Amino acid sequence: MAAIAGVLASINARQVLAHRPVRVAVMSTGDELVDDGSPLRPGQIRESNATMLAPLLAAAGCAVDHLGVVRDDEATLEEVLRAAAADHDAIVTSGGVSMGDYDVVKAVLGRIAEMTWMQVAIKPAKPLAFGRLEGVPIFGLPGNPVSSLVSFELFARPALRRMMGHAHVARPSVVGVTDVDLRRQPDGKVHFLRVNGEFGDDGRYHVRPVGAQGSHQLAATALADALVVLPDGDGVPAGTDVAVLILNLSH
Amino acid sequence: MAAIAGVLASINARQVLAHRPVRVAVMSTGDELVDDGSPLRPGQIRESNATMLAPLLAAAGCAVDHLGVVRDDEATLEEVLRAAAADHDAIVTSGGVSMGDYDVVKAVLGRIAEMTWMQVAIKPAKPLAFGRLEGVPIFGLPGNPVSSLVSFELFARPALRRMMGHAHVARPSVVGVTDVDLRRQPDGKVHFLRVNGEFGDDGRYHVRPVGAQGSHQLAATALADALVVLPDGDGVPAGTDVAVLILNLSH
Repeated sequence: MAAIAGVLASINARQVLAHRPVRVAVMSTGDELVDDGSPLRPGQIRESNATMLAPLLAAAGCAVDHLGVVRDDEATLEEVLRAAAADHDAIVTSGGVSMGDYDVVKAVLGRIAEMTWMQVAIKPAKPLAFGRLEGVPIFGLPGNPVSSLVSFELFARPALRRMMGHAHVARPSVVGVTDVDLRRQPDGKVHFLRVNGEFGDDGRYHVRPVGAQGSHQLAATALADALVVLPDGDGVPAGTDVAVLILNLSH
Repeated sequence: MAAIAGVLASINARQVLAHRPVRVAVMSTGDELVDDGSPLRPGQIRESNATMLAPLLAAAGCAVDHLGVVRDDEATLEEVLRAAAADHDAIVTSGGVSMGDYDVVKAVLGRIAEMTWMQVAIKPAKPLAFGRLEGVPIFGLPGNPVSSLVSFELFARPALRRMMGHAHVARPSVVGVTDVDLRRQPDGKVHFLRVNGEFGDDGRYHVRPVGAQGSHQLAATALADALVVLPDGDGVPAGTDVAVLILNLSH
Protein backbone atom coordinates (compact mmCIF):
# COMPACT_ATOMS: atom_id res chain seq x y z
CA MET A 1 0.00 0.00 0.00
CA ALA A 2 2.80 2.46 0.86
CA ALA A 3 4.55 1.92 -2.47
CA ILE A 4 1.21 2.47 -4.23
CA ALA A 5 0.95 5.84 -2.47
CA GLY A 6 4.39 6.62 -3.86
CA VAL A 7 3.35 5.61 -7.36
CA LEU A 8 0.22 7.77 -7.18
CA ALA A 9 2.33 10.74 -6.04
CA SER A 10 4.83 10.12 -8.85
CA ILE A 11 2.10 10.38 -11.51
CA ASN A 12 0.47 13.37 -9.79
CA ALA A 13 -2.74 11.44 -9.03
CA ARG A 14 -3.86 13.83 -6.33
CA GLN A 15 -7.41 12.52 -6.07
CA VAL A 16 -8.24 8.84 -6.38
CA LEU A 17 -11.48 6.97 -5.86
CA ALA A 18 -11.11 4.70 -2.84
CA HIS A 19 -13.18 2.79 -0.35
CA ARG A 20 -13.35 4.56 2.96
CA PRO A 21 -12.76 2.73 6.27
CA VAL A 22 -15.86 0.98 7.57
CA ARG A 23 -17.10 2.71 10.75
CA VAL A 24 -17.71 0.00 13.33
CA ALA A 25 -19.33 0.27 16.77
CA VAL A 26 -18.14 -2.47 19.15
CA MET A 27 -19.64 -3.26 22.54
CA SER A 28 -19.72 -5.90 25.24
CA THR A 29 -23.00 -6.78 26.90
CA GLY A 30 -23.84 -8.07 30.38
CA ASP A 31 -24.35 -6.98 33.99
CA GLU A 32 -21.61 -9.40 35.05
CA LEU A 33 -18.89 -7.42 33.22
CA VAL A 34 -16.65 -5.02 35.19
CA ASP A 35 -14.55 -2.54 33.21
CA ASP A 36 -13.66 0.13 35.76
CA GLY A 37 -11.06 -1.76 37.78
CA SER A 38 -13.26 -2.13 40.85
CA PRO A 39 -13.04 -5.37 42.90
CA LEU A 40 -14.98 -8.34 41.52
CA ARG A 41 -18.04 -9.42 43.46
CA PRO A 42 -19.37 -12.98 43.24
CA GLY A 43 -20.54 -13.74 39.69
CA GLN A 44 -18.64 -10.87 38.10
CA ILE A 45 -15.82 -11.01 35.55
CA ARG A 46 -13.59 -8.45 33.87
CA GLU A 47 -14.63 -7.07 30.51
CA SER A 48 -12.06 -8.17 27.92
CA ASN A 49 -13.77 -8.95 24.61
CA ALA A 50 -14.51 -5.45 23.31
CA THR A 51 -11.06 -4.44 24.56
CA MET A 52 -9.65 -7.18 22.31
CA LEU A 53 -12.02 -6.64 19.40
CA ALA A 54 -11.39 -2.88 19.14
CA PRO A 55 -7.70 -3.24 18.15
CA LEU A 56 -8.54 -6.26 15.96
CA LEU A 57 -11.04 -4.08 14.09
CA ALA A 58 -8.54 -1.22 13.82
CA ALA A 59 -5.86 -3.59 12.49
CA ALA A 60 -8.37 -4.76 9.86
CA GLY A 61 -8.60 -1.15 8.68
CA CYS A 62 -11.89 -0.14 10.34
CA ALA A 63 -12.63 3.14 12.12
CA VAL A 64 -13.65 1.88 15.55
CA ASP A 65 -15.90 3.32 18.23
CA HIS A 66 -15.58 1.35 21.46
CA LEU A 67 -18.94 1.79 23.21
CA GLY A 68 -17.88 -0.10 26.34
CA VAL A 69 -20.16 -2.33 28.39
CA VAL A 70 -23.92 -2.13 27.84
CA ARG A 71 -25.98 -3.26 30.85
CA ASP A 72 -28.72 -5.91 30.76
CA ASP A 73 -31.59 -3.50 30.32
CA GLU A 74 -33.77 -3.78 27.23
CA ALA A 75 -34.51 -0.07 26.88
CA THR A 76 -30.86 0.91 27.30
CA LEU A 77 -29.61 -1.72 24.89
CA GLU A 78 -32.18 -0.76 22.26
CA GLU A 79 -31.20 2.90 22.57
CA VAL A 80 -27.46 2.10 22.25
CA LEU A 81 -28.02 -0.19 19.26
CA ARG A 82 -30.26 2.28 17.41
CA ALA A 83 -27.82 5.13 18.03
CA ALA A 84 -24.94 2.92 16.84
CA ALA A 85 -26.83 1.97 13.67
CA ALA A 86 -27.53 5.61 12.91
CA ASP A 87 -23.88 6.57 12.43
CA HIS A 88 -21.93 3.38 11.77
CA ASP A 89 -21.56 0.97 8.86
CA ALA A 90 -21.49 -2.11 11.07
CA ILE A 91 -22.04 -3.16 14.69
CA VAL A 92 -20.08 -5.84 16.55
CA THR A 93 -21.47 -7.20 19.81
CA SER A 94 -19.94 -9.75 22.15
CA GLY A 95 -21.99 -12.11 24.28
CA GLY A 96 -25.64 -13.07 24.51
CA VAL A 97 -25.85 -15.27 21.42
CA SER A 98 -25.75 -18.75 23.00
CA MET A 99 -28.74 -21.08 22.91
CA GLY A 100 -30.74 -21.50 26.07
CA ASP A 101 -31.69 -19.06 28.78
CA TYR A 102 -33.22 -15.65 28.26
CA ASP A 103 -30.65 -13.07 27.24
CA VAL A 104 -31.37 -9.40 26.85
CA VAL A 105 -29.23 -9.15 23.68
CA LYS A 106 -31.24 -11.88 22.02
CA ALA A 107 -34.51 -10.36 23.20
CA VAL A 108 -33.73 -6.87 21.92
CA LEU A 109 -32.03 -7.80 18.65
CA GLY A 110 -34.75 -10.39 17.98
CA ARG A 111 -37.36 -7.65 18.30
CA ILE A 112 -35.77 -4.64 16.55
CA ALA A 113 -33.42 -6.28 13.97
CA GLU A 114 -33.66 -9.00 11.32
CA MET A 115 -31.42 -11.62 12.90
CA THR A 116 -30.35 -15.19 12.17
CA TRP A 117 -29.24 -17.15 15.23
CA MET A 118 -26.81 -19.89 14.29
CA GLN A 119 -25.06 -22.91 15.74
CA VAL A 120 -21.98 -23.39 13.56
CA ALA A 121 -20.40 -26.89 13.47
CA ILE A 122 -17.01 -25.63 14.61
CA LYS A 123 -15.08 -25.47 17.88
CA PRO A 124 -14.54 -22.96 19.35
CA ALA A 125 -17.06 -20.32 18.25
CA LYS A 126 -20.19 -22.43 17.82
CA PRO A 127 -22.82 -19.73 18.55
CA LEU A 128 -23.07 -16.85 16.09
CA ALA A 129 -25.69 -14.28 15.20
CA PHE A 130 -25.86 -12.12 12.12
CA GLY A 131 -28.46 -9.66 11.00
CA ARG A 132 -29.33 -6.08 10.11
CA LEU A 133 -30.68 -3.18 12.12
CA GLU A 134 -32.03 -0.42 9.88
CA GLY A 135 -29.88 -1.92 7.12
CA VAL A 136 -26.68 -1.91 9.17
CA PRO A 137 -25.03 -5.33 9.50
CA ILE A 138 -24.70 -6.69 13.04
CA PHE A 139 -22.16 -9.36 13.95
CA GLY A 140 -23.20 -11.08 17.18
CA LEU A 141 -20.04 -12.78 18.40
CA PRO A 142 -20.00 -15.28 21.28
CA GLY A 143 -19.01 -14.22 24.78
CA ASN A 144 -16.22 -16.67 25.49
CA PRO A 145 -13.01 -14.76 24.70
CA VAL A 146 -11.38 -17.37 22.49
CA SER A 147 -14.68 -18.04 20.71
CA SER A 148 -15.08 -14.32 20.20
CA LEU A 149 -11.61 -14.07 18.65
CA VAL A 150 -12.04 -17.07 16.35
CA SER A 151 -15.54 -16.00 15.34
CA PHE A 152 -14.22 -12.53 14.50
CA GLU A 153 -11.44 -14.01 12.37
CA LEU A 154 -13.64 -16.47 10.49
CA PHE A 155 -16.81 -14.44 9.97
CA ALA A 156 -16.65 -10.74 10.86
CA ARG A 157 -13.21 -9.78 9.54
CA PRO A 158 -13.70 -11.18 6.00
CA ALA A 159 -17.11 -9.47 5.74
CA LEU A 160 -15.74 -6.13 6.93
CA ARG A 161 -12.80 -6.36 4.54
CA ARG A 162 -15.21 -7.06 1.68
CA MET A 163 -17.15 -3.95 2.70
CA MET A 164 -13.88 -2.00 2.37
CA GLY A 165 -13.28 -3.29 -1.15
CA HIS A 166 -10.43 -5.69 -0.47
CA ALA A 167 -9.95 -8.39 -3.10
CA HIS A 168 -8.37 -10.74 -0.55
CA VAL A 169 -10.59 -10.97 2.49
CA ALA A 170 -9.41 -14.16 4.20
CA ARG A 171 -6.26 -14.64 6.21
CA PRO A 172 -3.47 -16.18 4.15
CA SER A 173 -3.76 -19.96 4.05
CA VAL A 174 -0.89 -22.40 3.72
CA VAL A 175 -0.47 -26.16 3.79
CA GLY A 176 1.60 -26.44 6.97
CA VAL A 177 2.96 -29.48 8.75
CA THR A 178 2.37 -30.37 12.38
CA ASP A 179 5.44 -31.20 14.46
CA VAL A 180 3.37 -33.03 17.11
CA ASP A 181 0.34 -35.31 17.21
CA LEU A 182 -2.89 -33.31 17.07
CA ARG A 183 -5.43 -35.38 19.02
CA ARG A 184 -9.15 -34.68 19.15
CA GLN A 185 -12.46 -36.50 19.63
CA PRO A 186 -15.03 -36.99 16.87
CA ASP A 187 -17.90 -34.55 17.59
CA GLY A 188 -19.23 -33.56 14.18
CA LYS A 189 -17.30 -30.29 14.27
CA VAL A 190 -14.31 -28.78 12.52
CA HIS A 191 -11.80 -27.65 15.15
CA PHE A 192 -9.68 -24.52 14.89
CA LEU A 193 -6.53 -25.09 16.95
CA ARG A 194 -4.50 -22.12 18.09
CA VAL A 195 -0.89 -22.81 17.18
CA ASN A 196 2.57 -21.32 17.04
CA GLY A 197 4.14 -21.58 13.64
CA GLU A 198 7.45 -20.90 12.01
CA PHE A 199 9.11 -21.61 8.69
CA GLY A 200 11.64 -24.45 8.78
CA ASP A 201 14.77 -24.95 6.70
CA ASP A 202 12.59 -27.09 4.40
CA GLY A 203 10.53 -24.01 3.53
CA ARG A 204 7.46 -25.51 5.22
CA TYR A 205 5.36 -23.78 7.89
CA HIS A 206 5.70 -25.96 11.02
CA VAL A 207 3.06 -25.72 13.75
CA ARG A 208 2.47 -26.86 17.31
CA PRO A 209 -0.45 -26.00 19.63
CA VAL A 210 0.02 -23.06 21.99
CA GLY A 211 -1.16 -25.15 24.95
CA ALA A 212 -4.49 -24.81 26.72
CA GLN A 213 -7.26 -24.86 24.08
CA GLY A 214 -10.30 -24.09 26.25
CA SER A 215 -12.60 -21.41 24.84
CA HIS A 216 -12.07 -19.25 27.95
CA GLN A 217 -8.26 -19.52 27.89
CA LEU A 218 -7.35 -16.36 26.06
CA ALA A 219 -3.84 -16.11 27.53
CA ALA A 220 -2.58 -19.09 25.51
CA THR A 221 -4.45 -17.93 22.42
CA ALA A 222 -2.87 -14.48 22.70
CA LEU A 223 0.46 -16.08 21.81
CA ALA A 224 -0.87 -17.93 18.76
CA ASP A 225 0.45 -17.17 15.28
CA ALA A 226 -2.09 -19.19 13.35
CA LEU A 227 -5.16 -21.44 13.34
CA VAL A 228 -4.99 -25.08 12.22
CA VAL A 229 -8.18 -26.31 10.57
CA LEU A 230 -8.63 -29.83 11.94
CA PRO A 231 -11.50 -31.79 10.34
CA ASP A 232 -13.82 -34.02 12.34
CA GLY A 233 -12.26 -37.30 13.48
CA ASP A 234 -9.51 -38.46 15.81
CA GLY A 235 -6.91 -35.92 14.79
CA VAL A 236 -3.66 -36.42 12.90
CA PRO A 237 -0.17 -37.68 13.81
CA ALA A 238 3.00 -35.58 13.82
CA GLY A 239 4.36 -34.97 10.32
CA THR A 240 0.92 -34.64 8.71
CA ASP A 241 0.10 -31.81 6.32
CA VAL A 242 -2.54 -29.53 7.85
CA ALA A 243 -4.49 -26.52 6.58
CA VAL A 244 -3.36 -23.34 8.38
CA LEU A 245 -4.70 -19.78 8.51
CA ILE A 246 -1.84 -17.43 9.38
CA LEU A 247 -2.88 -14.64 11.78
CA ASN A 248 0.53 -13.17 12.51
CA LEU A 249 3.82 -13.58 10.70
CA SER A 250 6.11 -11.77 13.10
CA HIS A 251 8.27 -14.83 13.82
CA MET B 1 -1.38 -7.83 20.07
CA ALA B 2 -5.18 -7.50 20.22
CA ALA B 3 -5.58 -10.74 22.19
CA ILE B 4 -2.88 -9.54 24.57
CA ALA B 5 -4.95 -6.39 25.19
CA GLY B 6 -7.85 -8.72 26.02
CA VAL B 7 -5.71 -10.73 28.42
CA LEU B 8 -4.49 -7.58 30.18
CA ALA B 9 -8.10 -6.40 30.56
CA SER B 10 -9.16 -9.81 31.91
CA ILE B 11 -6.58 -9.63 34.72
CA ASN B 12 -7.33 -5.96 35.44
CA ALA B 13 -3.85 -4.82 34.37
CA ARG B 14 -4.86 -1.20 33.87
CA GLN B 15 -1.34 0.18 33.63
CA VAL B 16 1.47 -1.67 31.91
CA LEU B 17 5.01 -0.62 31.10
CA ALA B 18 5.38 -0.40 27.34
CA HIS B 19 7.60 1.12 24.69
CA ARG B 20 6.03 4.17 23.14
CA PRO B 21 5.93 4.67 19.36
CA VAL B 22 9.10 6.19 17.97
CA ARG B 23 8.46 9.74 16.71
CA VAL B 24 9.93 10.01 13.23
CA ALA B 25 10.34 13.06 11.02
CA VAL B 26 10.47 12.18 7.32
CA MET B 27 11.40 14.52 4.48
CA SER B 28 12.39 14.59 0.83
CA THR B 29 15.16 16.90 -0.30
CA GLY B 30 15.83 18.62 -3.60
CA ASP B 31 14.88 21.63 -5.70
CA GLU B 32 13.84 19.27 -8.51
CA LEU B 33 10.94 17.83 -6.51
CA VAL B 34 7.39 19.08 -7.13
CA ASP B 35 4.73 18.18 -4.56
CA ASP B 36 1.97 20.73 -5.21
CA GLY B 37 0.54 19.30 -8.43
CA SER B 38 1.86 22.11 -10.63
CA PRO B 39 3.11 21.29 -14.16
CA LEU B 40 6.61 19.86 -14.37
CA ARG B 41 9.27 22.07 -15.90
CA PRO B 42 12.41 20.64 -17.51
CA GLY B 43 14.50 18.81 -14.92
CA GLN B 44 11.68 18.48 -12.39
CA ILE B 45 10.05 15.31 -11.06
CA ARG B 46 7.17 14.58 -8.73
CA GLU B 47 7.91 14.03 -5.05
CA SER B 48 7.04 10.44 -4.18
CA ASN B 49 9.54 9.06 -1.66
CA ALA B 50 8.41 10.76 1.54
CA THR B 51 4.81 10.11 0.43
CA MET B 52 5.73 6.40 0.32
CA LEU B 53 7.92 6.39 3.43
CA ALA B 54 5.35 8.08 5.68
CA PRO B 55 2.82 5.19 5.47
CA LEU B 56 5.65 2.65 5.63
CA LEU B 57 6.80 4.26 8.89
CA ALA B 58 3.24 4.34 10.24
CA ALA B 59 2.74 0.67 9.37
CA ALA B 60 5.94 -0.10 11.27
CA GLY B 61 4.33 1.46 14.35
CA CYS B 62 6.01 4.87 14.30
CA ALA B 63 4.37 8.24 14.96
CA VAL B 64 5.18 10.07 11.73
CA ASP B 65 5.58 13.76 10.91
CA HIS B 66 5.79 14.29 7.17
CA LEU B 67 7.83 17.46 6.73
CA GLY B 68 7.41 17.56 2.94
CA VAL B 69 10.07 18.73 0.52
CA VAL B 70 13.05 20.69 1.84
CA ARG B 71 14.71 22.94 -0.75
CA ASP B 72 18.39 22.90 -1.65
CA ASP B 73 19.40 25.69 0.69
CA GLU B 74 21.94 24.99 3.42
CA ALA B 75 20.51 27.38 6.00
CA THR B 76 16.95 26.11 5.49
CA LEU B 77 17.95 22.46 5.60
CA GLU B 78 20.01 22.98 8.77
CA GLU B 79 17.08 24.73 10.43
CA VAL B 80 14.64 21.96 9.45
CA LEU B 81 17.00 19.20 10.60
CA ARG B 82 17.77 20.84 13.95
CA ALA B 83 14.08 21.48 14.61
CA ALA B 84 13.28 17.86 13.67
CA ALA B 85 15.99 16.54 16.00
CA ALA B 86 14.64 18.63 18.87
CA ASP B 87 11.31 16.84 19.05
CA HIS B 88 11.70 13.47 17.30
CA ASP B 89 13.38 10.19 18.12
CA ALA B 90 14.62 9.62 14.57
CA ILE B 91 14.90 11.41 11.23
CA VAL B 92 14.48 9.81 7.81
CA THR B 93 15.67 11.69 4.74
CA SER B 94 15.42 10.69 1.11
CA GLY B 95 17.94 11.69 -1.51
CA GLY B 96 21.34 13.35 -1.51
CA VAL B 97 23.40 10.39 -0.30
CA SER B 98 24.96 9.23 -3.59
CA MET B 99 28.67 9.51 -4.24
CA GLY B 100 29.87 12.23 -6.55
CA ASP B 101 28.63 15.73 -7.08
CA TYR B 102 28.04 18.31 -4.40
CA ASP B 103 24.74 17.79 -2.60
CA VAL B 104 23.31 20.13 -0.03
CA VAL B 105 22.15 17.21 2.16
CA LYS B 106 25.64 15.80 2.31
CA ALA B 107 27.13 19.24 2.94
CA VAL B 108 24.78 20.10 5.81
CA LEU B 109 24.65 16.69 7.49
CA GLY B 110 28.42 16.35 7.10
CA ARG B 111 28.88 19.62 8.96
CA ILE B 112 26.26 19.45 11.75
CA ALA B 113 25.87 15.66 12.35
CA GLU B 114 28.16 12.69 12.92
CA MET B 115 27.55 10.80 9.69
CA THR B 116 28.86 7.68 7.97
CA TRP B 117 28.46 7.66 4.20
CA MET B 118 28.28 4.13 2.84
CA GLN B 119 28.31 2.21 -0.40
CA VAL B 120 26.60 -1.07 0.38
CA ALA B 121 27.34 -4.06 -1.88
CA ILE B 122 23.69 -4.61 -2.76
CA LYS B 123 21.39 -3.74 -5.65
CA PRO B 124 19.21 -1.73 -5.45
CA ALA B 125 19.94 0.62 -2.54
CA LYS B 126 23.73 0.92 -2.78
CA PRO B 127 24.14 4.42 -1.25
CA LEU B 128 23.22 4.82 2.42
CA ALA B 129 24.01 7.31 5.13
CA PHE B 130 23.58 6.87 8.87
CA GLY B 131 24.48 9.16 11.70
CA ARG B 132 23.33 11.23 14.67
CA LEU B 133 22.32 14.83 15.04
CA GLU B 134 22.29 15.92 18.68
CA GLY B 135 22.00 12.23 19.55
CA VAL B 136 19.02 11.60 17.26
CA PRO B 137 19.60 8.85 14.68
CA ILE B 138 19.36 9.92 11.04
CA PHE B 139 18.66 7.44 8.26
CA GLY B 140 19.79 8.90 4.93
CA LEU B 141 18.00 6.81 2.33
CA PRO B 142 18.77 7.00 -1.39
CA GLY B 143 16.67 9.07 -3.76
CA ASN B 144 15.69 6.45 -6.32
CA PRO B 145 12.22 5.30 -5.26
CA VAL B 146 12.88 1.56 -5.37
CA SER B 147 16.25 2.02 -3.66
CA SER B 148 14.55 4.12 -1.01
CA LEU B 149 11.97 1.38 -0.37
CA VAL B 150 14.51 -1.45 -0.20
CA SER B 151 16.90 0.60 1.93
CA PHE B 152 14.05 1.38 4.33
CA GLU B 153 13.13 -2.31 4.58
CA LEU B 154 16.67 -3.57 5.09
CA PHE B 155 18.14 -0.87 7.33
CA ALA B 156 15.72 1.70 8.74
CA ARG B 157 12.72 -0.46 9.63
CA PRO B 158 14.64 -3.04 11.71
CA ALA B 159 16.44 -0.28 13.63
CA LEU B 160 13.20 1.60 14.33
CA ARG B 161 11.49 -1.62 15.46
CA ARG B 162 14.40 -2.30 17.83
CA MET B 163 13.97 1.23 19.24
CA MET B 164 10.32 0.31 19.94
CA GLY B 165 11.31 -2.83 21.84
CA HIS B 166 10.27 -5.46 19.31
CA ALA B 167 11.94 -8.84 19.73
CA HIS B 168 11.51 -9.64 16.03
CA VAL B 169 12.79 -6.73 13.97
CA ALA B 170 13.31 -8.28 10.54
CA ARG B 171 10.65 -9.18 8.02
CA PRO B 172 9.74 -12.89 8.17
CA SER B 173 12.15 -14.98 6.13
CA VAL B 174 11.32 -18.22 4.38
CA VAL B 175 13.11 -20.61 2.08
CA GLY B 176 10.97 -20.15 -1.01
CA VAL B 177 11.25 -21.65 -4.46
CA THR B 178 11.46 -19.74 -7.72
CA ASP B 179 9.06 -20.78 -10.48
CA VAL B 180 11.18 -19.14 -13.19
CA ASP B 181 14.87 -18.68 -13.98
CA LEU B 182 16.33 -15.75 -12.04
CA ARG B 183 19.12 -14.40 -14.27
CA ARG B 184 21.66 -11.78 -13.20
CA GLN B 185 25.23 -10.68 -13.94
CA PRO B 186 28.12 -11.07 -11.51
CA ASP B 187 28.86 -7.61 -10.07
CA GLY B 188 30.08 -8.25 -6.55
CA LYS B 189 26.66 -7.36 -5.11
CA VAL B 190 23.78 -9.21 -3.48
CA HIS B 191 20.60 -8.47 -5.42
CA PHE B 192 17.18 -7.99 -3.84
CA LEU B 193 14.57 -8.93 -6.45
CA ARG B 194 11.02 -7.69 -6.05
CA VAL B 195 8.75 -10.69 -6.48
CA ASN B 196 5.18 -11.87 -6.21
CA GLY B 197 4.80 -14.88 -4.00
CA GLU B 198 2.12 -17.32 -2.99
CA PHE B 199 1.90 -20.59 -1.14
CA GLY B 200 1.48 -23.65 -3.38
CA ASP B 201 -0.28 -26.94 -2.69
CA ASP B 202 3.14 -28.28 -1.66
CA GLY B 203 3.21 -25.82 1.24
CA ARG B 204 6.14 -23.95 -0.32
CA TYR B 205 6.29 -20.19 -0.99
CA HIS B 206 6.58 -19.84 -4.78
CA VAL B 207 7.98 -16.62 -6.25
CA ARG B 208 8.35 -14.90 -9.62
CA PRO B 209 9.70 -11.39 -10.34
CA VAL B 210 7.16 -8.57 -10.61
CA GLY B 211 8.68 -7.42 -13.89
CA ALA B 212 10.74 -4.29 -14.40
CA GLN B 213 13.52 -4.28 -11.78
CA GLY B 214 15.05 -0.84 -12.41
CA SER B 215 15.64 1.23 -9.28
CA HIS B 216 13.34 3.99 -10.60
CA GLN B 217 10.48 1.61 -11.52
CA LEU B 218 8.35 1.91 -8.42
CA ALA B 219 5.11 0.90 -10.18
CA ALA B 220 6.22 -2.73 -10.55
CA THR B 221 7.70 -2.77 -7.05
CA ALA B 222 4.42 -1.51 -5.60
CA LEU B 223 2.88 -4.86 -6.52
CA ALA B 224 5.62 -6.94 -4.91
CA ASP B 225 4.87 -9.26 -1.99
CA ALA B 226 8.44 -10.11 -1.11
CA LEU B 227 12.16 -9.68 -1.78
CA VAL B 228 14.34 -12.55 -3.03
CA VAL B 229 17.92 -12.39 -1.77
CA LEU B 230 19.99 -13.40 -4.80
CA PRO B 231 23.72 -13.83 -4.08
CA ASP B 232 26.41 -12.65 -6.47
CA GLY B 233 26.81 -14.79 -9.58
CA ASP B 234 24.79 -15.70 -12.67
CA GLY B 235 21.47 -16.30 -10.92
CA VAL B 236 19.60 -19.54 -10.40
CA PRO B 237 17.34 -21.72 -12.56
CA ALA B 238 13.63 -22.32 -12.01
CA GLY B 239 12.93 -24.75 -9.18
CA THR B 240 15.81 -23.53 -7.00
CA ASP B 241 15.36 -22.78 -3.30
CA VAL B 242 15.83 -19.06 -2.65
CA ALA B 243 15.93 -16.92 0.49
CA VAL B 244 12.85 -14.67 0.67
CA LEU B 245 11.85 -11.76 2.91
CA ILE B 246 8.07 -11.51 2.98
CA LEU B 247 6.80 -7.91 2.92
CA ASN B 248 3.11 -8.56 2.48
CA LEU B 249 1.11 -11.75 2.99
CA SER B 250 -2.25 -10.60 1.67
CA HIS B 251 -2.38 -13.26 -1.04
